[in-house]
Amino acid sequence: MATNVEKTTENDMEMSTSAFGKARATVNTNPLDDEEVRKINDYFHATLYLCLGMIYLRENPLLREPLKTEHIKRRLLGHWGSDAGQSFTYIHMNRLIKKYDLDVLFVSGPGHGAPAVLSNSYLEGVYSEVYPNKSEDVDGMRRFFKQFSFPGGIGSHATPETPGSIHEGGELGYSISHAFGTVFDHPDLIALTMVGDGESETGPLATSWHSTKFLNPITDGAVLPVLHLNGYKINNPTVLSRISHKELEALFVGYGWTPFFVEGSDLPTMHQAMASTLERCITDIREAQKKARDSGKAFRPRWPMIVLRTPKGWTGPRKLGDHMLEGFWRSHQVPITDVLGNQSSLQNLEEWMKNYNPEKLFDESGALIEELKELAPKGKRRMSANPVANGGALRHKLHLPDWRDYTIEVKKGGNQLFGSMEQFAKYLRDVVAKNLDQFRVFGPDETQSNKLSAIYEAGKKVWMGDYLEEDEDGGNLAYNGRVMEILSEHTCEGWLEGYVLSGRHGLLNSYEPFIHIIDSMVNQHCKWLEKCLEVEWRVKVASLNILLTSTVWRQDHNGFTHQDPGFLDVICNKSPEVTRIYLPPDANCLLSVMDHCFRSENYVNVIVADKQEHLQFLDKDQAIAHCTKGVGIWPFASSDQGGEPDIVMASCGDVVTQEALAATALLREHLPDLKIRFVNVVDLFKLIPDSDHPHGMSDREFKALFTDDKPCIFNFHSYPWLIHRLTYRRKGQHNLHVRGYKEKGNIDTPLELAIRNGADRFSLAIDAIDHIPHLGNTGSAAREELLNRRIAAKNHSYHEGLDPEELTNWVWTY
Amino acid sequence: MATNVEKTTENDMEMSTSAFGKARATVNTNPLDDEEVRKINDYFHATLYLCLGMIYLRENPLLREPLKTEHIKRRLLGHWGSDAGQSFTYIHMNRLIKKYDLDVLFVSGPGHGAPAVLSNSYLEGVYSEVYPNKSEDVDGMRRFFKQFSFPGGIGSHATPETPGSIHEGGELGYSISHAFGTVFDHPDLIALTMVGDGESETGPLATSWHSTKFLNPITDGAVLPVLHLNGYKINNPTVLSRISHKELEALFVGYGWTPFFVEGSDLPTMHQAMASTLERCITDIREAQKKARDSGKAFRPRWPMIVLRTPKGWTGPRKLGDHMLEGFWRSHQVPITDVLGNQSSLQNLEEWMKNYNPEKLFDESGALIEELKELAPKGKRRMSANPVANGGALRHKLHLPDWRDYTIEVKKGGNQLFGSMEQFAKYLRDVVAKNLDQFRVFGPDETQSNKLSAIYEAGKKVWMGDYLEEDEDGGNLAYNGRVMEILSEHTCEGWLEGYVLSGRHGLLNSYEPFIHIIDSMVNQHCKWLEKCLEVEWRVKVASLNILLTSTVWRQDHNGFTHQDPGFLDVICNKSPEVTRIYLPPDANCLLSVMDHCFRSENYVNVIVADKQEHLQFLDKDQAIAHCTKGVGIWPFASSDQGGEPDIVMASCGDVVTQEALAATALLREHLPDLKIRFVNVVDLFKLIPDSDHPHGMSDREFKALFTDDKPCIFNFHSYPWLIHRLTYRRKGQHNLHVRGYKEKGNIDTPLELAIRNGADRFSLAIDAIDHIPHLGNTGSAAREELLNRRIAAKNHSYHEGLDPEELTNWVWTY
Repeated sequence: MATNVEKTTENDMEMSTSAFGKARATVNTNPLDDEEVRKINDYFHATLYLCLGMIYLRENPLLREPLKTEHIKRRLLGHWGSDAGQSFTYIHMNRLIKKYDLDVLFVSGPGHGAPAVLSNSYLEGVYSEVYPNKSEDVDGMRRFFKQFSFPGGIGSHATPETPGSIHEGGELGYSISHAFGTVFDHPDLIALTMVGDGESETGPLATSWHSTKFLNPITDGAVLPVLHLNGYKINNPTVLSRISHKELEALFVGYGWTPFFVEGSDLPTMHQAMASTLERCITDIREAQKKARDSGKAFRPRWPMIVLRTPKGWTGPRKLGDHMLEGFWRSHQVPITDVLGNQSSLQNLEEWMKNYNPEKLFDESGALIEELKELAPKGKRRMSANPVANGGALRHKLHLPDWRDYTIEVKKGGNQLFGSMEQFAKYLRDVVAKNLDQFRVFGPDETQSNKLSAIYEAGKKVWMGDYLEEDEDGGNLAYNGRVMEILSEHTCEGWLEGYVLSGRHGLLNSYEPFIHIIDSMVNQHCKWLEKCLEVEWRVKVASLNILLTSTVWRQDHNGFTHQDPGFLDVICNKSPEVTRIYLPPDANCLLSVMDHCFRSENYVNVIVADKQEHLQFLDKDQAIAHCTKGVGIWPFASSDQGGEPDIVMASCGDVVTQEALAATALLREHLPDLKIRFVNVVDLFKLIPDSDHPHGMSDREFKALFTDDKPCIFNFHSYPWLIHRLTYRRKGQHNLHVRGYKEKGNIDTPLELAIRNGADRFSLAIDAIDHIPHLGNTGSAAREELLNRRIAAKNHSYHEGLDPEELTNWVWTY
Repeated sequence: MATNVEKTTENDMEMSTSAFGKARATVNTNPLDDEEVRKINDYFHATLYLCLGMIYLRENPLLREPLKTEHIKRRLLGHWGSDAGQSFTYIHMNRLIKKYDLDVLFVSGPGHGAPAVLSNSYLEGVYSEVYPNKSEDVDGMRRFFKQFSFPGGIGSHATPETPGSIHEGGELGYSISHAFGTVFDHPDLIALTMVGDGESETGPLATSWHSTKFLNPITDGAVLPVLHLNGYKINNPTVLSRISHKELEALFVGYGWTPFFVEGSDLPTMHQAMASTLERCITDIREAQKKARDSGKAFRPRWPMIVLRTPKGWTGPRKLGDHMLEGFWRSHQVPITDVLGNQSSLQNLEEWMKNYNPEKLFDESGALIEELKELAPKGKRRMSANPVANGGALRHKLHLPDWRDYTIEVKKGGNQLFGSMEQFAKYLRDVVAKNLDQFRVFGPDETQSNKLSAIYEAGKKVWMGDYLEEDEDGGNLAYNGRVMEILSEHTCEGWLEGYVLSGRHGLLNSYEPFIHIIDSMVNQHCKWLEKCLEVEWRVKVASLNILLTSTVWRQDHNGFTHQDPGFLDVICNKSPEVTRIYLPPDANCLLSVMDHCFRSENYVNVIVADKQEHLQFLDKDQAIAHCTKGVGIWPFASSDQGGEPDIVMASCGDVVTQEALAATALLREHLPDLKIRFVNVVDLFKLIPDSDHPHGMSDREFKALFTDDKPCIFNFHSYPWLIHRLTYRRKGQHNLHVRGYKEKGNIDTPLELAIRNGADRFSLAIDAIDHIPHLGNTGSAAREELLNRRIAAKNHSYHEGLDPEELTNWVWTY
């Protein structure tokens, strides 16, 4: 064991596992007998051997020949630093899974140590089951090695190709929130979560420790975090590894956990320490759950967690030449970098790998010896075979009420005000009620502000913090809720991702401007989904639904900081295979769209709709027809009688549709003979050519709506140039005059803000007049009058702090 | 005092400041005499009166007439919830500023309580100095009230119009990192930072508490956080207010602070508690600083902080009708919402406001009475007049070495490989060395990975955590460094923003894909800068420079998660007044661009350049000429002899320029008669029309480069559609065929990744052939051969894990 590895070579390579010395641990009851220690250590060595093999070898996988340059990959890539600590934890959990028949998912926060996960999956046989040509023999092992970080192969994170992974760890910071997402409503599941100490410095991770305040020990499972105090990031020490024990302990007590420490590098004592500590944690988890479940009284236990301090690159050489390796940041990626050009380094590598004694660990055929195979759990109990990590296979369809039962009556489009979001909330309430075990709503303290509070009738807000008397006064808090609210978009999104990836359904609602906070997370989720499409065994999961409200056009008290509709641009950069964007103009369309989104699979659906009262346009049947097409002419708002129009007035978004319709009314008032065609877009990707997105229209369809030679004034909810980015290949694109938010704003009234950005009714009507040829004096007179009306309206805003009433509550007549 | 306010009215409004009862505090030495308590409390009441005035009144500011509906604003907006706690803290710091002659900046984390800051600024006279028509009299007060949350006025956050503010608080989570940014290299400054307990749930805030590990008590000032345990967010309790005292205390001990508690609502005892506690904190700060400065030995003190637990909406009515108000989330915004329609509510408001006794606080003219005026500090010691908050006025120019001295010799473009970033690092090292008191480099653990480690020669990495022996082995850590590295893009960006806004200079370097993590922060900084342009007294600050490297095209080991060049799209949505984007193609251009950025003011400069070795194209003089224009024809790479080309080959970005140039070489090899014009873009906004951005080209200039009738193959670093979004109004836009990253990737070799996205030399040459008319058989033959070469190159990648050597190290000949 350890002593085998400890020696100094003539090549200046000092092998050592004693950098941190004998184990120090909160609990250390020596539960393993010598034979168990030996086997566990052998298994550990087998995984480490495989890790190095993945990083280095393309041939000669079991080093049965002397190692030569031609056995080495020509470009060396991969991460070694956290492999040992992760594998160590994985293997010790295997013991407990077998002992207690546990259902455990492994979440690898430092996904950059994928070799640890991959090697364990390979040793427990899952990898070969999933990828038969990576068989458990010499040839399979060779292929298994070569594919790693090799073109056409797999990456060095826990990518979608990795069995058992729902968390890639490419972008750091989301392991804890992902893990919590998987265990909500999975009462028997334990998510064993390796948290990197580098990752721990990120904001999203730092706040996600508070997730325990939202986990119910009766109906949810448990997260067991193992903070891997590996000591180093790429080139720097980590903050948490360089503070006092007292501070470190206090921090996690403060976060609400009970930290157990396992620290050291000496293998035999570390195995005992980890075995006893991990077992203590599992026991504590099960006791807390039992207490809550037996009594039926939920409470917030101080859940156990482990702080595992081992040297970075553990079990590797302590020094290479003059430089520190094990226990230093130099072991982060490829630990010996010059094996291709330096014979002595190649020998070092060979010696190091042979120190793990592959010849004793693998049999003649190249398979792990039977004695060690027995250490892994069987079947679905193997962590890399946990079905939760292929959540699509576990997923049930949502039980959806008929959305048409929630539609509002619209006798005449444009003459009644109504809150679309409040109406949708009733439907959403019943979605919650019908899916109490598989649907949750997430939001950063904005659900009520976003007018969705009707859902609390079906499921309150989960709250495991303290309760006060005044919570009775509309607090809507409960141990057993369905709504998850923490003022962290990161945590909400992380929970939702974990929840969806493990086979359930959900919705995130957010103020539109601050969804940018999770641009990067949503990017990564899109990438995950897209890659999953290439992985045959991955079953599609529910779509991730993001409802954006409190939109840019209604920020009269929050002002400029709250005006940013640019999330759509971020989404438009992601793969068309997984992205959908909807801007329903009114309540009935919102209902139709949401129903569609809840039924869809494997997308990121972004839905934009304001929460204030707005004019309603389409009745149920019209909404069905319109949303099914995604874009269409509104005949009741058009005056071209189906013929060629003088101008097309188009809109996409609720507030801007109201203004565009008002503009057509103004035009008809002033220029009654004008032939106007009104087009509304619900499904944004309709605008793009069909070659670029599955929802895209053909040029012919596009022309049938927008013409290719008539001017079109297009009022858009977001930044106007996004429409040009979607339509630049259309023949008539030069005739598109798009208005939208142009980053001009303040604490303006709604009309004033629209005027600033040229997206108000008056400006649109004037725009139309300016672009229609041959209007002559009639046109000039109308233009003049509209200009005056715009000035008057704006003046009113300035003096009263309000838009003129006839505009705010404006009823559109046609 | 308190007892004045406590009574129940007949209108079901229960006035109370006893929700939390008498003060409980870690330190409570009763330092104030009764007279001091009375005055401080009167001053406090004066600010609260003003807060309510701002939210409600447009006339009758001192309630000298009975309050009527017409005195009330017609739309009620603003935030009351955190006003009292913030103002309370502000006023108590005033006492200490006077006593110890302190230099203190007030950072309002819950910027949504701007009335607290505004009222204090008004009472200390700064507001009237800055805005003379908001004078210290009845009329000035009326205008001061009316402008708040009123069109043409100011918002309800600590917006740029707010004297003394560098932190708006519109988007939450950045108060601590901003505060640290202001005190770095400002040894005498104390940033008194109100941290909202809502804000505390955000990821960025949660990790920013660790900033103490990067603050040197000798050369930096101090941050004194006051965590305002206000209890509620918009509609929810806050996590930190609902955990045990033990956990709360442990959390901050764990973060490395010494928390002092001040809890309660009874005014007299709260004043004593806050006065003593705040004084203790100031004393502790000064002692720690003295110890470090006298000894010359830096260390990390457990800096003091305050946990201030007061009721939300403190001093307001405890109940309104059946609902809780003070001490509940209902007091978050406008506390009594129906004063316009409900006479009894209007009376409640009047009574509440009169409880503060305005007639005793303000004299006949409407000014604060002299006795109270004396409580505020004088001149620049007034927190709202702290010059640091108008950092541009303090700013010194950077001492820049002559960048031309760092250029590399390029005898012939395209035949030598060189690391642009390593070369730039030498220049950056000397920028650091020449500006040791006013320039810092920030990065999330990637500075060395990004090949910038030469800068450690001039300034090491600041590290106040523990040190270990191995740090000597290239750790580059120091108490007294100039490089700030924490694995939190949020914290790095927050520090840099604070540093720049307080008058200094800096650079953030980051992996390109993960800059999306701070999309929202950069958005907000752009918005701040843009609004500052409208505020007359704000002096321009240094630009915020973001250097993106480890770019999309070189992610062969990190793969798909690390491929996202879309930050440019986010920037392009922000105001052209404050945004600049540069993509220098080689080392000399990078140097030229960076020199320009370091000299610029008030921009967000985004510079994209890869860190690997690349071909070099331009010598010093060519680089000067090219970067000055921002876009230009490269004659040495063109074969049109200044005449009309058959095709334009264009590029923007380093890797893609290499491929585009290689494509022209391939075309010349196969089709020697072809007239090719090569255009390179350094300054991305050159492409947009001059009406839309100050850097934009006129149509004439655009045509002179790109023609308006010849095909142009444009190879772009980022998502290709961004070029279309910038050029959709150009006449020749239909001839632009843009290639770039189309979200297709994996752990591909560089060439393979380019091929996947159609941005490689072969595909570009084929594209050109496909778009040039009349090439006939010669064209077809060339096309065929290029296709074969592409297949061969790709096959080589697959088998060897490398691009063919002649491509990787390809030397371009012309």
